Amino acid sequence: MIPFISQLPENEQNVWLTALNDCLPNENVVRSSDISPADKKRCQVAIVANPHPAQIAEFGHLIWLHSVWAGVEHLMSAVKDSPIEVVRLIDPMLSQTMAEAVLAWSLYIHREMPRYAKQQMNNHWQQHQYIPASDRRIGILGLGELGQASAEQLHHHGFTVMGWSRSKKSLANISSYSGDDGLTEMLAQCDILLCLLPLTPATKELVNKSRLALMPKGSAVINFARGAIINTDDLLDALNTRHIDHAVLDVFEHEPLSSQSELWQHPDITVLPHISAPTNLNSACDIVAKNIIKFRETGLLPVTVDKVTGY
Amino acid sequence: MIPFISQLPENEQNVWLTALNDCLPNENVVRSSDISPADKKRCQVAIVANPHPAQIAEFGHLIWLHSVWAGVEHLMSAVKDSPIEVVRLIDPMLSQTMAEAVLAWSLYIHREMPRYAKQQMNNHWQQHQYIPASDRRIGILGLGELGQASAEQLHHHGFTVMGWSRSKKSLANISSYSGDDGLTEMLAQCDILLCLLPLTPATKELVNKSRLALMPKGSAVINFARGAIINTDDLLDALNTRHIDHAVLDVFEHEPLSSQSELWQHPDITVLPHISAPTNLNSACDIVAKNIIKFRETGLLPVTVDKVTGY
Repeated sequence: MIPFISQLPENEQNVWLTALNDCLPNENVVRSSDISPADKKRCQVAIVANPHPAQIAEFGHLIWLHSVWAGVEHLMSAVKDSPIEVVRLIDPMLSQTMAEAVLAWSLYIHREMPRYAKQQMNNHWQQHQYIPASDRRIGILGLGELGQASAEQLHHHGFTVMGWSRSKKSLANISSYSGDDGLTEMLAQCDILLCLLPLTPATKELVNKSRLALMPKGSAVINFARGAIINTDDLLDALNTRHIDHAVLDVFEHEPLSSQSELWQHPDITVLPHISAPTNLNSACDIVAKNIIKFRETGLLPVTVDKVTGY
Repeated sequence: MIPFISQLPENEQNVWLTALNDCLPNENVVRSSDISPADKKRCQVAIVANPHPAQIAEFGHLIWLHSVWAGVEHLMSAVKDSPIEVVRLIDPMLSQTMAEAVLAWSLYIHREMPRYAKQQMNNHWQQHQYIPASDRRIGILGLGELGQASAEQLHHHGFTVMGWSRSKKSLANISSYSGDDGLTEMLAQCDILLCLLPLTPATKELVNKSRLALMPKGSAVINFARGAIINTDDLLDALNTRHIDHAVLDVFEHEPLSSQSELWQHPDITVLPHISAPTNLNSACDIVAKNIIKFRETGLLPVTVDKVTGY
């Protein structure tokens, strides 16, 4: 018996349960609330989608949790004092969808769609000089699976691509930076800053007033990672003083974004409802199932999330 | 002496003259109005950028005109009763910039940017199901240099690509259609219809009420060719009845688009000021210069525009 622990609406949980059981014909994946206290003590592995920490605590002998999402910051704080290991979803389909979103909204900035949209609102016909993609420098924060897939896509399209990560990486066609000095160096060259970092204590508000100030005047910010990685007030200041030209925000500290938020009607912010790279149900269930079948056969866990670094 | 015949503003003409003379050190490219009537009779070739027909008529013995633009419909009607041949700009840089625009605005439709922009206007957070690029069928009208470069780019990105041209073409990875029946067949499958045809008597208002009706409900139209290829009233009807979901229009029958036009404020039209693929001054001058140097050396003309078909 494998519990599915989630706070998702009932209908969404049902969709997951059906798909997971289809992929795991020798298992019985059930809603966690449908498991008796005695059975709960016997579960070694659970599948989770935004679980409440209290829901996890009901299971006394869990060895590991498999998240169906790539972002696991809430999960990591829920298990930080327990021996439970966390496996996050690493799905090539997800990387491909994210790389597509990165290309789509990089082209959105590159081809000046927000500027032309403003002109349209004012019935104003004006052409602006075309800048070749090779003259646009895009800096990616985070070079994990999503960052690397995105960097390749952007390079293939002809953009000049840089990447920053905690430990220096060596990637073809990408200038890589690491550490504080590396971040300073990269930010000074970013026409577009693209955020794909996991949210960890080290990345919270990494993009703040002083770092935004390092970016060239007229540059743009795209956040497809987690809202809290950017200090929103500092970003608003940078937009309102025209230092940063435009921001595309797909993620927010509190989601859904409150209908009262001033971000919605800001003329230089594109607000998206966390749609850059939705989990693909079928490919996610395939991956989760393969990992669980291997665990049942061998007792081996997939790569788990480091509890110190958070990724 | 080579006349530069143009109605462009003075400053733009100066930029062209400088660049053309740099590429043609053994020639003297001069503004057509600066040439004496006697010298005008001696000119065999002219370089043109939106010339007035009367300006061309002043030259009695022109063999050919080299346009610095790809679209030559005005030029063709100016020379239709004369023996003057027309060479249009065929520039790989232009094809690349157009293919980029095609990808950028196809992704704009594919990733539902207009829909999310409307939600943002209403402070409304709602996610819509992600559809993979392979499930989006894009039909291209016109498979010349621009159409072929665009088709390759879209295929590479994972879209399902179809193309229609007057004579059937055989292209890798693209389903090709031709003729009236082929157009009917392709339109019925187009989630996005992309217009890259030259404007000729045969393509004027090719996209009309009955052809728009053939497209699937909820599909989109992108016009990067010439405004007159689409019947605007028919397109507005199709948008207003929700048969067509969105249109991206970069070209119009009269440009600049009048500030009084109802197109500007239509909620389902993205108006662009003819910016999909601007001529690149340097690469255009290189190509024009090579063609003229070869003509001087050999008397041979590059491929000229067919006066019957108009392309």
